[in-house]
Formats: sequence, structure tokens, C-alpha cells
Amino acid sequence: MDLVHVALISYTPDPERTIAAAARVSVSPVTITELWERLSPERADSLLSQLLAAGHLSPFEHASFTFAIEGISRVTSHQLVRHRLASYTQQSQRYVSLKKLDYVTPATISARPELENKYHRVVEAAHELYSQMLEAGLPAEDARYVLPGAVETRLVMSMNARELMHACSLRLCLKAQWEIVGLFEMLKAEVLKVAPRLGAELNPKCYRLGYCDESVSCGLFPTREPPSAPDKAK
Amino acid sequence: MDLVHVALISYTPDPERTIAAAARVSVSPVTITELWERLSPERADSLLSQLLAAGHLSPFEHASFTFAIEGISRVTSHQLVRHRLASYTQQSQRYVSLKKLDYVTPATISARPELENKYHRVVEAAHELYSQMLEAGLPAEDARYVLPGAVETRLVMSMNARELMHACSLRLCLKAQWEIVGLFEMLKAEVLKVAPRLGAELNPKCYRLGYCDESVSCGLFPTREPPSAPDKAK
Amino acid sequence: MDLVHVALISYTPDPERTIAAAARVSVSPVTITELWERLSPERADSLLSQLLAAGHLSPFEHASFTFAIEGISRVTSHQLVRHRLASYTQQSQRYVSLKKLDYVTPATISARPELENKYHRVVEAAHELYSQMLEAGLPAEDARYVLPGAVETRLVMSMNARELMHACSLRLCLKAQWEIVGLFEMLKAEVLKVAPRLGAELNPKCYRLGYCDESVSCGLFPTREPPSAPDKAK
Amino acid sequence: MDLVHVALISYTPDPERTIAAAARVSVSPVTITELWERLSPERADSLLSQLLAAGHLSPFEHASFTFAIEGISRVTSHQLVRHRLASYTQQSQRYVSLKKLDYVTPATISARPELENKYHRVVEAAHELYSQMLEAGLPAEDARYVLPGAVETRLVMSMNARELMHACSLRLCLKAQWEIVGLFEMLKAEVLKVAPRLGAELNPKCYRLGYCDESVSCGLFPTREPPSAPDKAK
Repeated sequence: MDLVHVALISYTPDPERTIAAAARVSVSPVTITELWERLSPERADSLLSQLLAAGHLSPFEHASFTFAIEGISRVTSHQLVRHRLASYTQQSQRYVSLKKLDYVTPATISARPELENKYHRVVEAAHELYSQMLEAGLPAEDARYVLPGAVETRLVMSMNARELMHACSLRLCLKAQWEIVGLFEMLKAEVLKVAPRLGAELNPKCYRLGYCDESVSCGLFPTREPPSAPDKAK
Repeated sequence: MDLVHVALISYTPDPERTIAAAARVSVSPVTITELWERLSPERADSLLSQLLAAGHLSPFEHASFTFAIEGISRVTSHQLVRHRLASYTQQSQRYVSLKKLDYVTPATISARPELENKYHRVVEAAHELYSQMLEAGLPAEDARYVLPGAVETRLVMSMNARELMHACSLRLCLKAQWEIVGLFEMLKAEVLKVAPRLGAELNPKCYRLGYCDESVSCGLFPTREPPSAPDKAK
Repeated sequence: MDLVHVALISYTPDPERTIAAAARVSVSPVTITELWERLSPERADSLLSQLLAAGHLSPFEHASFTFAIEGISRVTSHQLVRHRLASYTQQSQRYVSLKKLDYVTPATISARPELENKYHRVVEAAHELYSQMLEAGLPAEDARYVLPGAVETRLVMSMNARELMHACSLRLCLKAQWEIVGLFEMLKAEVLKVAPRLGAELNPKCYRLGYCDESVSCGLFPTREPPSAPDKAK
Repeated sequence: MDLVHVALISYTPDPERTIAAAARVSVSPVTITELWERLSPERADSLLSQLLAAGHLSPFEHASFTFAIEGISRVTSHQLVRHRLASYTQQSQRYVSLKKLDYVTPATISARPELENKYHRVVEAAHELYSQMLEAGLPAEDARYVLPGAVETRLVMSMNARELMHACSLRLCLKAQWEIVGLFEMLKAEVLKVAPRLGAELNPKCYRLGYCDESVSCGLFPTREPPSAPDKAK
């Protein structure tokens, strides 16, 4: 079994300055070139904080990140591609025959040796039949029906910083599925290396809300009462 | 094994008239109410033809269709949700435990009894282990890693008529995967019942191109030479 | 000057039941047809409340609303079309010559008779020159450069219930521009007539947040301190 | 009057190699890092040609371009922001008071001295009243109703290469409005400087179709008969 591997293969250079410069355009009378030149890192940083505090998130769309993601299960890639404001190019099980079998084993299964044993046997039996079907001349696009969700896949994903903040707000919540939580932690780590201010904003939703909106809290933030109606609030 | 079942559970009433009325707004000085009342079915039909001929497809976004889809494999649902300009709510393998095992068997496998036999055995062994893991207290979201791509799923999908035409242009091409071709044929059949003019436009891309742009044609339309450069064309 | 006119020309029938049925699909083992039949209005209502409380908003995308909007200024239509997850067909100033001049006058201008007088004169001078240019054979697409942002336009807009809730969260805030606030109040009134439960959720963002995130509150909800860091919150 | 100014302030480094590497992921069994290293410029170029010939456009989404655009009219920015698969941050007429008046004069107006004279007088009268209203304490968001569509604006736009090809296919057609044609010619020129292979694909739709689908051709490509029905084509 391989490990998950995430690499940031490309991104908007100077992502935080790009966002800050774009945001200044909407409220400033000076030219964009001037805005760009005047933007010190400190000023950019402070502008990002203001945007976040005010919930003005659209300028964050101007910074885009392209990741290579390898070693996640098809279970997880199926969840990942549900984020529609992003671009994906995924290894095709129609065109690529999987000679070697790489697959993910959940920790709850590894913890139970008797189940783990059966798990490996069933997954390997599936791969063996897959290989037999290919040898028998069946198309890979049909043989793959027998492959389990555990089978690893690879893909390239591009996502802008606004959508990345949104996806992290959902997928870094400990109520999300463990494999996708792990993936987003690696995406965050990659962003932190090149854009520390942005990376620091890739957090579960409770960081922004100030409370937990799940039915039971993981302990990071308490749950809260639903907001009072406005007439009561006055 | 269940059969695929597709039902149109909801759609924009009067979809063709809605599209035609919207299109008239852009070029007419009269009010929208007047436009609506003046639109006979024949006039709407003729306006749709003009829009299609001119490639003015945005008014087709005003008609939306909501389908219940049951009995497709996870292999196919993973492809389906890659159409991003649509809305999906899919049965979750995290929250729903699959007591009964419904799964898809590709025809190329059914055609080979010795492979088919093994296929059923492997798929059933996977489901048996899945059930054992659930009984042993493992969460469904982990047990499902062993389930094959063949396992059936159900979902609700909403797609507007413009995206439906685009998705059909790709998925009704015989080079697409057989299960998704079958699904889109059923979606088209549903649309034809309530909007025959629109339904008739749900076709593989070659109908609109007038040629086949795949490397080998299925015979419906011939492939073509790439377009000449404009200076040569003059 | 005309008044703004908003009409709901089409929408997903049974919008609340459609949303509730879609939401049930993700967590229920029964078929979609059964789900649909079992859904009483009270059950649908209660499901919508649960979805909203948990922030599970994607099922709300399955209900779509198509509005005819007439009599808003080009100033406002330019803001409106910035909501990208929606479909618009707008009267074209390239193809439609505006014989009669309909335009919007802000209340702050009407309140100052000497400015209002000048305003009408300047707007009418612009329209007069526009008409002269058309008579002189200039294309409408060029003559329109002289027309003010006040000039009225009409359009058809389709938006699903999730995006409608999002757009209202921004545009019903009293810090939004008065004309677009008024437009969204009319959109909300239309939805309330056919889907009271949904319509009741079309509110400024503070209703959901439980506080005001603008720099100064209108009084409906108080502003709040930014959320504490999670380590402090524990 | 200022001239339009377009600058490419940021873009995905190595855009063509990024697209080619992503595309290879879908059909190759080797790791993404290996794919990246093996990709010579010639190989990337040839892969892009294959993708374009086959109409596989989704990998082009992985390269994104961020432009500063200054000196276009509000008439044109209103058209531009209708391309929804892009990100915009535009100078706000709510928050920025336009002390100096910069505006666009269409060539058909400049060509007619008597009309041009009136045009300047009407536009300047509008700006004068605008300034008076600001001095009288009216908010900029209301005073701007009097400003003509000719008034210049500035914005930052990010668009990926797939959407840029699509937008150019519509906006480089000589049937598009002259100002937006000019803008997209400048966007193309910027892309050509850093990604010549991609830039060469930013063309009006007829280049790809091999014919003109407008009612009257500009001469670059001939119009064509609508495609025959498939049964006739066989």
C-alpha cells in the first residue's frame, strides 16, 4: 500500500498580494499598477484580515492552486469531486489498466487483525479477477466494476483560495470522513509553505462561526443555541 | 440485481415557452407579460429552432429538470457528478448501511459464464465482509471501502436544459461508457414525454457538428479533416 | 417613470417537497418514489428546518425560480448579474432601440427639487442625443454610450433556492444599495406566495449569523467580537 | 479620454506544461512527478494539439490568468461580467467618487463632428451634475445614476484557459461589439507573450467550427448549410 502524496505543482505567484491588490481596486481611485507597487507584505496582510473580518471573500478567487494528489481511495475522490467550483483531471479506470494493486485500508480495519486479513483477501481476489478479465479480453472499463472503493487513484485539482477556504471549512471538521480530513490537512500544509497568511485561514467552519453547528461538538468550540429572532434581539 | 429506474420528479412547467419568452426579452421592446401571452406553441417552437441554429444557448438555462435516478453503479455516479453545472443529492454510503446487495453486471461479463460466476462470488464475498464489519461495530463509512464500484446507488439530479444538451452531446456518443449512455437515453426519454421539442435536441455531439470528432466514427456521421486555416478558407 | 415590476413566471412545482425528498435520499434506504409519497407537508417542513439548522444547503438547489424583472436601472442590473450561480436573459441595448425613455430617480435626488430638475434635464438631453444619433444612422450599440445608468432595463432571471438564500443574505442587508434591496424584497414576496417556508428563509445574513458583521449595525442585530481562537475557547 | 490598458498581473507559471501534465494523468499509469519531469516543451505542445483536436478541454482549466483591465466603458464591463466562469473585482461606483471624468467615445460618433460635439457636452453635463450632487452631500451610489455607460471603469479579472478560449470564441467574432472585441484582442496579446501555444488558440468560433454560424459572414469563413440528419448522412 502506498501513502497519500500531495504536491503543489503550480499556483498563482504572490497569491496574497494578488488578492490584496484586486480587493483595493474596488475601493481605490488609483491605477492597478500603482496599487500593486504600493502593496507591502504588511499592508497585504492587513488587507486580507479586513476582507476576512467583513466576509468579503470574492477577491480570494484571484489566487489559484494546482495540486497533484496521489494515493487517495476512489471512495474519497468521489467525495472530493463534489466540490464543483474547482477543476479536476483524474486517472481514468477506462483507459488505465491497474497492473499493480494499490489500495487504502481504514485504520478501524487494520485494528482488527481477523477483519484485516479478510479485507486483504477480498480486495486481492477482486484484483485477481480484474486481471483475469483483462487477459480474457474484456475492456478495462467493464473489468473495473469488480474493483473496491479502496483502490487508489490519482488526480490533478485546481481550486481557488475562496473555494479552498470553503472546502476546508467542511472537510477539516472532524465530523468529515477521516480520509478526506487527512487529504485536506495535506493541502493546507502545502499552502502554508507558500502563502502562510492564506494557509492560516484554511480551517474548519467552527473557527469562523465561533461555535460548532454539528449536533455534537468535538470539543474545539461549543455548540450554541440557534440565533434569537431579530425582534427579540433588539 | 435491480434495473435502472429514472423518473422526472419535477421540472419547470411549460419549459419550451419559458425558454422562448426569456429569449424574446433580449430583443423585444414589449413587456415580459405581453411576450408570454403572445407566445403560441408554434411560435415558441420556431424561436427554439432559431436559437439553436444561432448557437444562442443561454435562454435554455431557464428550464430545469429534476430526476430521481436509481440502480446505477457507483462507477457511473462518479462519472455523472463530474458535470458540475448541475445539482446532486446522492445516497450516502456513510449514513446508509446496505443490507441488501444490489449491483450492476456489465454485459461483457454476463456473456462469459465462467467470469460471470467468479464476478458474482467476488462481489458477494465483498458484501459479506461488509456485513461482518458492520456487525463487528465498524462504521459504515469504513466498511464500504471493500464494496465494489458495481454497487448500486440512487440520487436526485437537477440540470437545466442547456447543460442537459451539453451532457447528452458527450454521454450519448457511443464512445462514452455503455452504462452512462443508457442512463442518458433514459433521461432523454423522460424529457421527450413533457417537452418533445427540447427532448429532440438531446443528441450526441455529432448531430450538431455535422461530423464525428472521435478518432474512429461509429458510422452515424463521418469524421472530417480539421478545418483549414482562415487564409486558405477565403 | 415606470415602477419596478417583478413576476414569478415559472418555478419548480412543490418546491419544498422536492427539496425535502432530495434530502431524504442521502440518508434513507427506501426508493425515491416511496420517499416522495410518504412526505406530508408537515414532514417536509420539519426536514427543511433540520437542513437549515445543520447548514446542509445543497438540497435547496433542486428548487428553481424564474422571475421576470422590469423597471430596474442598469446600475442595479450590473450588480444583479454579478451573482454567477444563476441564469439571466436581459434586454439588449445593442438590438433594442429605446424609443420611450424610462429611468429610475433615486429618492435622495427627488428630495432635492433643484437637483431633481437638473437630473431630469440631463437624462432627457442624453436620450434626445441618443435618438438623434439613431436617426443619423448610428448603430444603437454605439448611441447607447450616452445613456445614463438610470435607464431602465428588463430581464428574466432563474435562480435556485440555495443561491436565492445566499443572494438575499447579502442584498436584503440594509447596507446593500437601496434599489437592489427593494428588488430582493419583491423577489422574496413572490416566493412567499408559493413557498412560504422557503420564503421565510430569505433574510439578511444577520438572521443566520445571530449578529451583524458590518462595521456599524442597522440595529436589527448587534455587532460582535471576532470569535476567540479555539485554544481559548476550550 | 484614456486608452484601454490591459496587464497580465499574474498567471499559473508554465501554463502549457501544467495543462499537458494534468491531461497525461488521466491516461497514464506513472506518477504525476514523473509525468512532469518527462514533459519536454515539444511533447507538451503536441499534447495540447491532441487535446484540442479531440475536444478534451477540461485540462485547460488548470491554467489561470489574472488581468488588470483599465479604461473600458461600463457598457463593456456589463457585458464582460456575464461570463460567469471567471472572477471579477471591479471598481465600485458606490465607494469611489469619480473626480476626473474618463469616458469612451465610439468611433462612429467621433466620425461625425456635430454629434461628437453634442456627445462631449452631454457627457460632461452629466459629470458636472454628478459632482454637484456629491458636493450637496448626496451619496456617490445615488449620484452615479446620472453617469453615462461611456464612463470608464477598472477591474481585475481571473479566467482559466478553457473559459478564455470559450469567451474569445464569442468575443473575437467581428459580430461582437467593437469595444469588447478590442478588449479580447488585448487579452490575447498578453497571453501570447507568456504562452504562445495557448495564445494561438484564442480565436473566434469560426476557427474551430470551420465555418461561420452567424447569419452573414465577415468573410473569414463561409456560412454553411445546417448539418444533414444522421440518417441522410449515413
